[in-house]
Amino acid sequence: MTIAPIEPALNEVSVFMEDVLQEILPEPAGPQARVIEAMRYATLEGGKRIRAFLVLQAGRLFGVDRRALSRVAAAIECVHAYSLVHDDLPAMDNDDVRRGRPATHVKFDEATAILAGDALLTHAFALLAAHETHPDPHVRSDLVLRLAQSSGFGGMVGGQMIDIGAKGTLDDIGQITRMQRLKTGALITFACEAGAIMGKASTQMRHALTNFAQDLGLAYQITDDLLDVGGDPAVMGKAARKDQKAGKATFVTILGSERARAQAEMLANQAAAHLDVFDEKADLLRGLVSFVVNRRA
Amino acid sequence: MTIAPIEPALNEVSVFMEDVLQEILPEPAGPQARVIEAMRYATLEGGKRIRAFLVLQAGRLFGVDRRALSRVAAAIECVHAYSLVHDDLPAMDNDDVRRGRPATHVKFDEATAILAGDALLTHAFALLAAHETHPDPHVRSDLVLRLAQSSGFGGMVGGQMIDIGAKGTLDDIGQITRMQRLKTGALITFACEAGAIMGKASTQMRHALTNFAQDLGLAYQITDDLLDVGGDPAVMGKAARKDQKAGKATFVTILGSERARAQAEMLANQAAAHLDVFDEKADLLRGLVSFVVNRRA
Repeated sequence: MTIAPIEPALNEVSVFMEDVLQEILPEPAGPQARVIEAMRYATLEGGKRIRAFLVLQAGRLFGVDRRALSRVAAAIECVHAYSLVHDDLPAMDNDDVRRGRPATHVKFDEATAILAGDALLTHAFALLAAHETHPDPHVRSDLVLRLAQSSGFGGMVGGQMIDIGAKGTLDDIGQITRMQRLKTGALITFACEAGAIMGKASTQMRHALTNFAQDLGLAYQITDDLLDVGGDPAVMGKAARKDQKAGKATFVTILGSERARAQAEMLANQAAAHLDVFDEKADLLRGLVSFVVNRRA
Repeated sequence: MTIAPIEPALNEVSVFMEDVLQEILPEPAGPQARVIEAMRYATLEGGKRIRAFLVLQAGRLFGVDRRALSRVAAAIECVHAYSLVHDDLPAMDNDDVRRGRPATHVKFDEATAILAGDALLTHAFALLAAHETHPDPHVRSDLVLRLAQSSGFGGMVGGQMIDIGAKGTLDDIGQITRMQRLKTGALITFACEAGAIMGKASTQMRHALTNFAQDLGLAYQITDDLLDVGGDPAVMGKAARKDQKAGKATFVTILGSERARAQAEMLANQAAAHLDVFDEKADLLRGLVSFVVNRRA
């Protein structure tokens, strides 16, 4: 399997998305400026933009205009940012630090953080439904529907509910896998699927991408769990051993580090195999697979 | 102006919407059942369904199928319910009672309430984007875009930010009017507009309905403020004098009861006048105007 140099491409997308998000997030103005500032704080200058990268690369396979893809990528980054803002709240995971900076509810306050999360989620749908995103309204409606399904009770929110409600009761790998498929996998899968929807890809191509994304998402999560146990907090920009301290069952607590590492590798190979239907245009997605399991943060 | 008997029609819609919501809300199942139970608790058996009534009546003016309208009405009721769940949280308005029952975060817990609100908002967009709502994807995209604009930073969430951030600094009627137009007016306006969008109404008809809704929404809010001061808590199912106790400026604290009452009447007449372009099919909307300013709860 060809491994394209992935870091430069990831960095380029990260810089590109910063500009896109600067543009598509509202300007703080009016008496409600505070919630807009919190929306921007939670979304800008943050993260690896893996989801945005997936949208851009998946769409590229079908020749979709990058400008249009960037709006969908921005919408997904808004949803991801909202989920982190709400997850960090004292009533949820109670995290004060995110990406090496104060969490949104620490920088602002809890009420503003709740509202900023709500507004980011809402803004994502406004972005997808607007004409500039795609001239075909079927495509726009399909994007909205799939984003909603991926992020609601049957996706991300459902996964977070299982995670915080579990309190140590998730004790087999099947349960943890199901939880993670909802909590983080669904949105990652939608990121890839969105490129296929925008490009009106065949069902076969669309399935290849969603299968790829599901395996990639799990490999990503297992690596996260490995980093939680063995990673360097200074590199990660957040506390390590958080799950361990919270007494949470993870892939690592159940499988042990060695088997968890092997599982991540297996999933990575499986993810890459789903890309066999694509030509060298998918090389950056192939490169991402090995980046995801070998990252240090 | 002809006043149609409005209570029977409101009651019929309330019963009808209960069935619709029972059907369109997910069934509690799977390990995330708890968040679905909270979604249902927050949405079912509650409220006057004024927003749903507006969707159904506005759509009826253009001969739109009631079944299709009911999905849009349900989506708006989901958004309204989510806003109440989040507004009631301790970090926001800190209300333990809603519609005579424990607030969602009291009945469940704060984390579940935050997630249930998130999931209700998300579900609303899934409902609007699904094919069953309207065969024309332009209509579905337009509904999604307008709902997002009405409920996000430039609408409902923005209004709530102003309200909780104000802490007594809103001291003229212009500021309070602007805040309420966002906080409650935007979603009420969208409810009427949605009927027009579904019916592909002319711009003139659409504007008549949104102007009607803006005046109706403010008249509704002023009446709320009057009930907060002079209403009967047993009839209202919530505490009275909440605003007064919280030291909040309202239409009543600034104008006094008498002038506030006159203002509500003036807005009601103005709202009704916007309906002059419609024939007797709008009689229930006309009836609603007088119901809104004369209600006791």
